[in-house]
Amino acid sequence: MAVYTHLGAEELAELIAHYPVGPLVSAKGIAEGVSNSNWLIETAGEDSQGARFILTMYERRIELEDLPYFLGLLDHLSARNCPVPRTIHDRQGAAFRMLDGKAVALIEFLPGVSPSQPEAGQAYAVGETLAKVHAASQDFGLSRENTMGFGQNLACLEGCGSNALASIDPDLPQILAPARAAAELDLSALPQAQIHADLFPDNVLMLGDKVTGLIDFYFACSGPMALDLAVTHAAWCFDQDGAYLHGLGEALLAGYQSVRQLDRQEKNALPQIAKGATIRFIASRAEDWLDTPDDALVTRKDPMQFVSRWHFYNEHGADIFA
Amino acid sequence: MAVYTHLGAEELAELIAHYPVGPLVSAKGIAEGVSNSNWLIETAGEDSQGARFILTMYERRIELEDLPYFLGLLDHLSARNCPVPRTIHDRQGAAFRMLDGKAVALIEFLPGVSPSQPEAGQAYAVGETLAKVHAASQDFGLSRENTMGFGQNLACLEGCGSNALASIDPDLPQILAPARAAAELDLSALPQAQIHADLFPDNVLMLGDKVTGLIDFYFACSGPMALDLAVTHAAWCFDQDGAYLHGLGEALLAGYQSVRQLDRQEKNALPQIAKGATIRFIASRAEDWLDTPDDALVTRKDPMQFVSRWHFYNEHGADIFA
Repeated sequence: MAVYTHLGAEELAELIAHYPVGPLVSAKGIAEGVSNSNWLIETAGEDSQGARFILTMYERRIELEDLPYFLGLLDHLSARNCPVPRTIHDRQGAAFRMLDGKAVALIEFLPGVSPSQPEAGQAYAVGETLAKVHAASQDFGLSRENTMGFGQNLACLEGCGSNALASIDPDLPQILAPARAAAELDLSALPQAQIHADLFPDNVLMLGDKVTGLIDFYFACSGPMALDLAVTHAAWCFDQDGAYLHGLGEALLAGYQSVRQLDRQEKNALPQIAKGATIRFIASRAEDWLDTPDDALVTRKDPMQFVSRWHFYNEHGADIFA
Repeated sequence: MAVYTHLGAEELAELIAHYPVGPLVSAKGIAEGVSNSNWLIETAGEDSQGARFILTMYERRIELEDLPYFLGLLDHLSARNCPVPRTIHDRQGAAFRMLDGKAVALIEFLPGVSPSQPEAGQAYAVGETLAKVHAASQDFGLSRENTMGFGQNLACLEGCGSNALASIDPDLPQILAPARAAAELDLSALPQAQIHADLFPDNVLMLGDKVTGLIDFYFACSGPMALDLAVTHAAWCFDQDGAYLHGLGEALLAGYQSVRQLDRQEKNALPQIAKGATIRFIASRAEDWLDTPDDALVTRKDPMQFVSRWHFYNEHGADIFA
């Protein structure tokens, strides 16, 4: 949560002038995004109707060569009536520009707020929307490898090392064996699509039970749809104490399958995939934990939260995804 | 620049429901304010016209008993057509509410951006607006002591101590003697008003040469108008290398005096007041510098910038304010 780069009003106004959106009226740095800086931008609009946008400056973690995929996917899905923000192209038609050596993109502002304590009706709607995104992405022309696949998760945990993992929690190194098992999984025969791969409630804008926007597609990649559903399940269906929210889990799966029925092979694989999904967040949180000084003013997310979800899926996954 | 408190969507929606602004549509934490958390809030509006607001949560430095003064002053000035954001009162008429033990206020959103490299036309407009605020504040019923007066600045520097000041810069302790002289100044005979007292470009929203908003009144107090003008002069009229921008200085004074003529006593006092104003920022920056660990990820503002401005006013103040 930060704005990493200071952009002066004059610099912002000059940048915005490259887009067909009218002159700059307001710009506020917003506290969103861990790997980029974001501003909520207001312009006078071209037809003197005020318009709002999110300006994103890509700071780190994001490879420039991935931007055509990320931004193109937004345009592709938006054109197919999925609730994702479209990219505003500049007057030369470019989806992103360079500013001070960094890429910037102007993205449609969407209304809505991210639920902190989602309800079943919201989980249903998110499942439905996720399936629509999967369907709409089938004819997208670009692809991107999953850089957070099960093999990478294992490499990340092994890179941390048992001793460092144990310094976070004495039980944490025990996740290495399941991580090795997950890395062996072959998901290539499962139905594929472009997947969001990080659909936490933070990345969903809603008004009541209506999804108004899926955002932050910067882990999006080509991969098995069941993986996206499993990530979303692990991210949405547990309360703050780690208890499984049965109603939300049922609603998410029902919403998803109201648009796209899971096949037998996917259902059979889902318990293993869900365990793999928890390992992804265990790995990234463990790495962040070890990278963050003890006295930093940043709240570290506890990897053990997802260890407990791994145990839950290990015991109950077969029932839940039956 | 931070959002210190996390407020969930449900908590925000419940809070906003206390105000006559329609349901919550969007909320983004914004990276503004050093002593409070801020969100840019959008609601559906009461008449189904979308409306935007700044929600401020007061985190520290701000005394609860000062809020009626700060928020009342905004309402008072706004009602007199000064470009300041008015406070939205809740359905019971209260200007602020308590949430999780902290005060929160909903404040009008104003368009405009803060100039990084102000031009003379902008300085003129700011001078003009400042004088209008001074005039409009004359019949405001509340008062507040300046907690950053010259006496407090001296106490702050003495509290740091010569050795600590020297650790920032070997020349810094030399400011103690001028700080003692400033603390002796008696400004009580000068014309008084409610003053902003911190009118850096960051706290002014503009569209071109038009002032659309003065914001961040949390140092506002009752005091000599010449002090407010001197602070604004010190904050606006030097470039990033510390060079005096003669055109801006002239324009600021001309804009101010197009609304309210300075009297002889004020003109005579201004060189001393301007030096005192620089000492205020030297003191607060020195204190922040010493409070901030060397390895903190926060950019510390160099107090020596204002030491060089002190020298400038010491040499040229009599000419500038003649």
